[in-house]
Amino acid sequence: MFGCLVARKLVQTAAQQVAEDKLVFYLPDYENIKHVVIFMLGTIPFPEGVGGSIYFSYPNSNGMPVWLLLGFVTNGKPSAIFKISGLKSGEGSQHPFRAMNIVRTSPVAQTGISVELLDSLA
Amino acid sequence: MFGCLVARKLVQTAAQQVAEDKLVFYLPDYENIKHVVIFMLGTIPFPEGVGGSIYFSYPNSNGMPVWLLLGFVTNGKPSAIFKISGLKSGEGSQHPFRAMNIVRTSPVAQTGISVELLDSLA
Repeated sequence: MFGCLVARKLVQTAAQQVAEDKLVFYLPDYENIKHVVIFMLGTIPFPEGVGGSIYFSYPNSNGMPVWLLLGFVTNGKPSAIFKISGLKSGEGSQHPFRAMNIVRTSPVAQTGISVELLDSLA
Repeated sequence: MFGCLVARKLVQTAAQQVAEDKLVFYLPDYENIKHVVIFMLGTIPFPEGVGGSIYFSYPNSNGMPVWLLLGFVTNGKPSAIFKISGLKSGEGSQHPFRAMNIVRTSPVAQTGISVELLDSLA
């Protein structure tokens, strides 16, 4: 349903589903990521009244993920380009991925998509 | 073989072939385009020794297309994000789309992909 793209890398279309309404893409080599592109493939629309909040996560100095809200995609705005460089000194924000059991052997960045009611999208 | 994406719009994957080695994507509403993303779908690689030069074209005040070289994609660098805003006051550059018979009823912007030898890529 979604594609995720980092400049210079191959597009990813196989997100990992970590909850019924949550998907993540893993992004290796995150220190060099300047922009992340999230787009709907155009095959399956969101159900009526919902869209996807987009989060970016990177490991802090302890290897723990810091999550930042980037924005959203909807059926009416099916793609977005987010600037990541400069964000990585942030403190993190409220996010719905806290309870997810996302286990990785090495710290990588992630883009998370959380399906939410349109009213609650940023 | 390629995808083309403008932020907020649906991804395009059906390029129009205008010559054996040249493809274009049409980009409506070009005045509001800030970035163009070009990426290989990952299904078909370039043949050995070649890649794709990426051009952007917009209509000048006479409706004639002005072409600008943006950069390139290759098997080793299968995607690129190009900043378009700010380019549109440029003079245009040498490009291989001059002889193409690209007829449109209304002036739109285009992204052109020209398959070329790696040695000749920008």
